[in-house]
Amino acid sequence: MSFVLKIERGSTEIWQHQFAELMPQMPLHIWPDYGDPADVEYIAMWTPVPDVVEKFPNLKLIFSLGAGVDQFDLSSLPAHIGLVRMIEPGLTAGMVEYVVAQVLSVHRDLPLYMQQQRECVWKVWPERVAAHTRVGIMGLGALGIPCAKAIASLGFITSGWNRSPRDIEGVTVFAGAEQRDAFLHQCDIVVCLLPLTDETRGMFNAELFAKLPKGASLINAGRGPQVVASDLLAALESGQLSWAVLDVTVPEPLPAEDALWKHPRVVITPHIASMTQPDSAVTSIIANIRRYQAGEALVGVVDRGRHY
Amino acid sequence: MSFVLKIERGSTEIWQHQFAELMPQMPLHIWPDYGDPADVEYIAMWTPVPDVVEKFPNLKLIFSLGAGVDQFDLSSLPAHIGLVRMIEPGLTAGMVEYVVAQVLSVHRDLPLYMQQQRECVWKVWPERVAAHTRVGIMGLGALGIPCAKAIASLGFITSGWNRSPRDIEGVTVFAGAEQRDAFLHQCDIVVCLLPLTDETRGMFNAELFAKLPKGASLINAGRGPQVVASDLLAALESGQLSWAVLDVTVPEPLPAEDALWKHPRVVITPHIASMTQPDSAVTSIIANIRRYQAGEALVGVVDRGRHY
Repeated sequence: MSFVLKIERGSTEIWQHQFAELMPQMPLHIWPDYGDPADVEYIAMWTPVPDVVEKFPNLKLIFSLGAGVDQFDLSSLPAHIGLVRMIEPGLTAGMVEYVVAQVLSVHRDLPLYMQQQRECVWKVWPERVAAHTRVGIMGLGALGIPCAKAIASLGFITSGWNRSPRDIEGVTVFAGAEQRDAFLHQCDIVVCLLPLTDETRGMFNAELFAKLPKGASLINAGRGPQVVASDLLAALESGQLSWAVLDVTVPEPLPAEDALWKHPRVVITPHIASMTQPDSAVTSIIANIRRYQAGEALVGVVDRGRHY
Repeated sequence: MSFVLKIERGSTEIWQHQFAELMPQMPLHIWPDYGDPADVEYIAMWTPVPDVVEKFPNLKLIFSLGAGVDQFDLSSLPAHIGLVRMIEPGLTAGMVEYVVAQVLSVHRDLPLYMQQQRECVWKVWPERVAAHTRVGIMGLGALGIPCAKAIASLGFITSGWNRSPRDIEGVTVFAGAEQRDAFLHQCDIVVCLLPLTDETRGMFNAELFAKLPKGASLINAGRGPQVVASDLLAALESGQLSWAVLDVTVPEPLPAEDALWKHPRVVITPHIASMTQPDSAVTSIIANIRRYQAGEALVGVVDRGRHY
């Protein structure tokens, strides 16, 4: 039995320290080292290892280092290998910070004031009031629920849309395909926290934008391929959308020549909305290994049918 | 008996509607109209009317339309005329939004990412974690207390400094001159919400900045004259300060040639942190008039000795 960690950035020190502390019997290998391939039962990674199933014949669980699993080809993964997305408090807290920051920023015209600053212009725009501003969160999972609660606590009229119903205090929840239009009709600011699946790919297109109130804004902290960039630019040009805040793009990094960079109503951040925090991530992974070993249900296991 | 309203911007409709509804016996005049000067007992204004005491011999209460009263010359105001600063939920909510937005913005490097966007640069900086970031609010009054609570609810290590002690759940409170240095020593982000008085004028100078941890940031949503701009620029140049977010300046509007506009580590907003909201402001003023008429203590009355 062994655990392989494959990370692209950041230190591995916390991982080594925490495994030694909490699960000393588990040998930890740092990729590209993986020891005896036949020993590898667990692997944690962001970008997939090619032919991981063939390489590690006794693999039991794959842990994604991010909230999403869209980087993996689920069809090539045998059903007996569990795939677990990252649910850990550090990742959640970071997303709440990002969503609250960007909702407030759009709501209070902060990008516009930063543009005015570059031109040394002191000009006041009418203040909008949270109590009259409708914010809608798409995707009410481990990240979306605490985001919706934080937005509601600031006094916004808060709603959410989710595939299945949810009961969240202070948040009006719309569920399923049949309530999606009703949800969109009442979003002054819509926040995407959806997983990337066949259903959400290209979801933010001209048709969806037309269902939002004129002058609405989009914050995408989901995945780049959920937005049709040409439709987004057209909606910004026509005034159907006021602002687009994009933490995710196609491709990433966004090429320097992409029109999104320079659009005056687009704010781009380089996929920094939230990062997995090593200390709480290790704790979360070790807890899931313990559950697996005890034959209990895992937290964050991916439903192959839903792709999340 | 009559009430004079002097506003520089915004509609007077809500005022007229609310007075007609809630205090129909009170004639409301909109400046420059004021009817018979001898009838004027109450006036609400932002910029002062010159010789207001001589002009309206029966004046009883002056209401500031803003949270501060530093625009008035208190020494020229007879003691029998009450001066009331604005405390109303709309103004408070706006300040909470602004402070939360700017704290998160500095914390998550959003101004830096907006600068990178202008250069089409996709570069990720290490994420800071709220649980390790210390935010200190200076001034724990009607605005500061709810700001501190909102910051604490996002997981920041939250403290506050105030002239007199306060008891706020989740917030470490430092009080008085003797605890000011201890407070400053532990602020990664310091937020100024202090009133402008002789004691706070020029308070944010080289000496104060040197007491903050190296690389700290300042958010000033108090008053412009509290900051010594030349000291601020020097502290930003030396790296003692990382960011300065200024909603208030000297003078206002800030002249186009002022060096603050162009400094890459300064964010300027044109005194928009929070605006008095007419509907809740009228309610607040009418409640105070009723208290005055009933001989009860007013909410927000200015202590002439403290100047706030």
